This record gives sequence, structure tokens and C-alpha cells, in this order.
Amino acid sequence: MRLNKTIGILGGGQLAKMLAIAAANLGFNINIYCPDRDCPAAQVASKVIFGNYDDSDNLVAFAKNVDILTYEFENIDTKALEELDQQVEIRPSIKALKISQDRYTEKSYLNSLGIKTTQFYKIDSVADIEKLLNRLKKPILIKTRRLGYDGKGQVLIKNQDDINKYFLGKSLAPSIAEEVISFDRELSIIIVRDKKGNIKAFEPGENVHEHGILLTTTLPTSTSEVLKNNATIIAKKIVNDLGYIGVMGVEFFLKEQGLYVNEIAPRVHNSGHWTMDGSYSSQFQQHIRAIMDLPLLSTERHSDVIMYNLIGTVTSNLVNNELAKVYIYGKKDVLPGRKMGHVNLIKKKGS
Amino acid sequence: MRLNKTIGILGGGQLAKMLAIAAANLGFNINIYCPDRDCPAAQVASKVIFGNYDDSDNLVAFAKNVDILTYEFENIDTKALEELDQQVEIRPSIKALKISQDRYTEKSYLNSLGIKTTQFYKIDSVADIEKLLNRLKKPILIKTRRLGYDGKGQVLIKNQDDINKYFLGKSLAPSIAEEVISFDRELSIIIVRDKKGNIKAFEPGENVHEHGILLTTTLPTSTSEVLKNNATIIAKKIVNDLGYIGVMGVEFFLKEQGLYVNEIAPRVHNSGHWTMDGSYSSQFQQHIRAIMDLPLLSTERHSDVIMYNLIGTVTSNLVNNELAKVYIYGKKDVLPGRKMGHVNLIKKKGS
Repeated sequence: MRLNKTIGILGGGQLAKMLAIAAANLGFNINIYCPDRDCPAAQVASKVIFGNYDDSDNLVAFAKNVDILTYEFENIDTKALEELDQQVEIRPSIKALKISQDRYTEKSYLNSLGIKTTQFYKIDSVADIEKLLNRLKKPILIKTRRLGYDGKGQVLIKNQDDINKYFLGKSLAPSIAEEVISFDRELSIIIVRDKKGNIKAFEPGENVHEHGILLTTTLPTSTSEVLKNNATIIAKKIVNDLGYIGVMGVEFFLKEQGLYVNEIAPRVHNSGHWTMDGSYSSQFQQHIRAIMDLPLLSTERHSDVIMYNLIGTVTSNLVNNELAKVYIYGKKDVLPGRKMGHVNLIKKKGS
Repeated sequence: MRLNKTIGILGGGQLAKMLAIAAANLGFNINIYCPDRDCPAAQVASKVIFGNYDDSDNLVAFAKNVDILTYEFENIDTKALEELDQQVEIRPSIKALKISQDRYTEKSYLNSLGIKTTQFYKIDSVADIEKLLNRLKKPILIKTRRLGYDGKGQVLIKNQDDINKYFLGKSLAPSIAEEVISFDRELSIIIVRDKKGNIKAFEPGENVHEHGILLTTTLPTSTSEVLKNNATIIAKKIVNDLGYIGVMGVEFFLKEQGLYVNEIAPRVHNSGHWTMDGSYSSQFQQHIRAIMDLPLLSTERHSDVIMYNLIGTVTSNLVNNELAKVYIYGKKDVLPGRKMGHVNLIKKKGS
């Protein structure tokens, strides 16, 4: 065991908190870097440094005191990242991070590996949107290339009125347009790879979103074994190609028996929270093990489980169910649309 | 959910650390009181106050800032406890704590409930030991009434030479003498009771000790269902009689189909660490839920498991097993006989 090592985490939200707990259980020290003094991860970290994600000096000072640097989200300033990369080993590598930071780069990368995505187009101006809409003559989704999450930074454009409503007289951030596809269901897979190339994948879960925010993840899905295997093969192709170290979340649309990758997250992922109570290992344990060169654990699922996000609330009807494992992130303010916690409801196998 | 409540924990060892993690997952703040600046629980607490366990002023100041006070060990100064009890609700109550602090009181209390213990005798002087040895004419165990743990504070006396060796010219702390019984096996049960009187008991595990220190706990045991039920009935009788709130560990000797209670621990217990990976709830989650008036969880076991203590070491041959869940407490120094961590090795059901 590598004792007395310090893991630095960029970000102090719930993902960082749950990573910090997994790291603490293995005896590692955890240093958190985040801008918010009330961040959830601060509760369980040995040390917290407060600073912004574009403050290179502060970030570099933070990185000097850690053995391995990891992160809970993708939206970190590129220049700062390059400087950090000179200071300390970042796992997963900034290559994966840069790809997933930009929707255009991400989809282009996936296509280059022969992985299907929805059809997408580069959009640099409002005129580009008008031209595309006229050509395709069907609704398109406009998404900013960077900084989108939980359905933020995207609008549906059906006609010129929509263009006027959302974009007239505004400057347009670099964006992409995506075809709107109607998919049968959405799956996601949590996969982990270590430095030696060992890979473990959790069983794919089925996700339900509302207003772009994940509501539930359910295991098992009724998806065929063939499709689940294909999803795993695709995820493996990505982590192997990247020489990836750590946990990655891969989201799929499932349509007419075909799998389209919606997005990749180079980190632990909300759709993997079920692993905390349904599997012999959690995604958080696996991520810490991978980045600290400890052997990966079994990803076998021991129970059926539904993960419910607590969105804009810290209460749940489920709390009286003796098989409901509740997690409350400890965010200071309860806000609409904000992920305040989650519940893993165990549905025993065979029940 | 009771948010923004603060739980105070007396003690900063591994039990406090694992309690703090369970509390953090439910969004509670955790304040730790302990004398050691490098204590394991400090890594995961929102606040740590350093002080001794007989420093009433410091303890009272600590208690003023918490909503509920709990503890990870029994050896807290009685006078300080009484003062704390005026400040804040202590759960489990100090009644349970006082009983378990003193081996004579504890065994007398158990006998008063009709629960069998080994035969025991009050020992106040070396002359008492001599008289008893002459009368019984068989080996006796001399144990201090207070402050014993992990086999410390006890010696086996077979003859006058042993008495001379251990006690000649020394002052004797208030002690008990116990008959040495040869038992077939040792079981323990982890039970939790809430304020309303709801009770959940985990399945009894089988313990193996070496030099007075717990080595392994194994689930399931080959003990009969009748005996396991009897153990549960005895544990329930104790927590009900005490009006107990929280988790209690009860250790049993099993001899010729009879159950003898060896000791009760008014807290989470080493022999319950298997629950972290073998059950739908852990003893730490249950304790926090009970003391914070949240509904208790299912104690059902989903997997077979062996818990191995890491004693005087932070390495294990088990680490390469993909079903070995390792916990390293993060103690500063590795010392012989010191519990440095534990491993829960999952043995899948039916395998």
C-alpha cells in the first residue's frame, strides 16, 4: 500500500467529496482545490485551498504539495492545466480532459475511432445556424462547444423565430449544431483503466433525464447482452486509445439497435453512483485505486438498484425504506435544479 | 433529513473516522475531540478539538457546539461525562457507558438481567487473589475493572509464583477475577436501537482472537440458527433494558451449547467492520442514523465475508484479490499490536 501519499483534487463538489472519502478509507491524504469555502468536499479533506480555476499561480502552488492530481470536472482553464502538467502527474491525463472539454473535438475524436455519434456541425456564427437550418429543414440542437453541463448551454432551434429569440443581437460562443435524434433509451457505462492497461467495466445502467438533468439510473437494464457488450467494447476502445488512467463515464443513446456515444466524462460520473451500494466496488474506490497504482477491484454487481438524484431537495419519500441508502452532499443552499444528494434504492436480486 | 446538524465524537481513532465518514455521507457536520493531533478521524472531520479526556473545561466547550454527542470508546472520565451530560444529549446514554466501563459492574448488570457470564469475583487486594486461588484451586484471570482493551490489563494466575511475579510489592488497581473457561468459539453481534425502540440486529459473526486482539470475523458462522437467535434475543434484552440509542457490540463465548456474554461495547465494534462490505448497511451508518433519529436500515447480509485486521502492518497478501476491500486508518506510526487497518474479503454467496 502507498501510504502517506497526498492526492490533490481540482473541484470541491459531491464527486470530489465521494472521491475524498474513498481515498481516506485507503489512508491517503486529500487536498482539495476549489473556489467555494462551503464546498461539500471541504468537510472530508485534510486540506482545502480556495482559489479560482484560472488562477495559475495558486493552482501551481497547490499542485506542488500533492503526489498525484485528479479532478472532478472538465471545465478547467487550458493554460492553467498546461502549467499544472509541468508540476505533477495529472490522472486522467490532460489529453482526455482537453478532448472532452470541447464538444466538437470530442465528437470528432470519437468518429476518428470509428465510434458513432449523432451528426454534428461546427457553428461559428448565427449565419452558420441559419444556413444549416435552411439546408437540413429539421430541428437542430445548438450547444456551446465548452462549459456545458446538466443541459446548460444548449437550445433547440426549429425555425428562424427560434434563432431570433435566442441569438439575435448576441455574440455567439463557438458552438456545434446537432441533429435531434429520437432514441429508445440512454445507457451509460463506467469504466476504469490502470497504468498497466488493466480494465474493469461496470455493467451498463439505464438513465432517465429530465430537462437535461439525470433523474435515475437503473440496474439491470432490459437491454440485450449483445448491446451491453458492444457498449463495453466501445468504452474500452476509448480508454485504451487514450492510454487512460482512472474512471471514465461514457453516455450512449440507443436507437434502432445502434449505439451512439453522446458524451464522455474523464472522471467519476453521476450515472455511476449506484455502484456505491449495488456493486462489490464503487466508481470512487476504483478511480482512487487506478490513479494510485493499486490493483483494481471487481466490478461485479451484487444487487439490483435504482439511483434517484435528489434535485433541488434534500428530502425523499424513500427515506423510510430500509433499503434506501441516502447521500446528502451538504451543499449550503438548496436551489432548484441543483443536485443536493442521491438515493440508492436496493432492489434485491431476484425480487 | 436533519441537515446542518453537528455530531460531536469523543475519540479520534479508526472508529471515529468511519463514523465521521458515515455522517458526512448523510450531510452532517462532524466535530472530533481527541488528544492526538495525528488522529485518523481528523482527516475527515469538519473540525477537530485537541484535548485530554479528563479536561472538563475543554470537553464542555466542545460539547456546546454540537447537537448530539457520541463516542468511540468507553474510557472517558466519569466526572467529565457527568458535566457533559448537562450540556448536550449523549447517545448512547452515559448509563450504558458507565456500566461497560467497569468489568465488575458490567457482569453484575448482565447477571441481573438473567444473562450468563463467566463466574467472576471482586478483587481489591493481592490477599483477595491469594484467598481465591486457594479456594478454587484452578487458574484465574485477573483483570482490571477499568481501562482494559485488546487484552491489556489482564493476567493469568495459576499459582503463588504468578502472584509474586505480577503483583508483589505493587499496588493493585480495583480488579475482578474470572474463571478461565474453555469455549468452543466466540461470536459477536452488532445491534442497533433507535429512540422509538426500533431494533435491527446484524447476523452474528464468528471471531478469532490472538493475544487478546481480534484477528478475524467470519460470516456466516457454522453456529446453529437456534444459538444465533438466542444471541440476538440476549442483545435485544440488553438494549431494551437500557433504553439504548445507537449501535452496541455484544461478545459471546459459546460453550457446550450455552452462550456467555463476555463483554458489551456501547459503540461500534471491530467485529462489525464486515458490515461495510457484506451487508446492505454498515454499523457506522446505523449508529449515525440511530443517534440522529433517522430510520434504521436493513441489516440483511448480501455476501459472505471474512474481516481480517491489519495488526502492526499496512500490507496484506490479500491486496491483489479483486474482492478484497482494504481500509487503512492512516495512523502515523506502525507499531506492533496496533490496529492499522482491516480487509473485508468478500466470499460470494454460494461460492
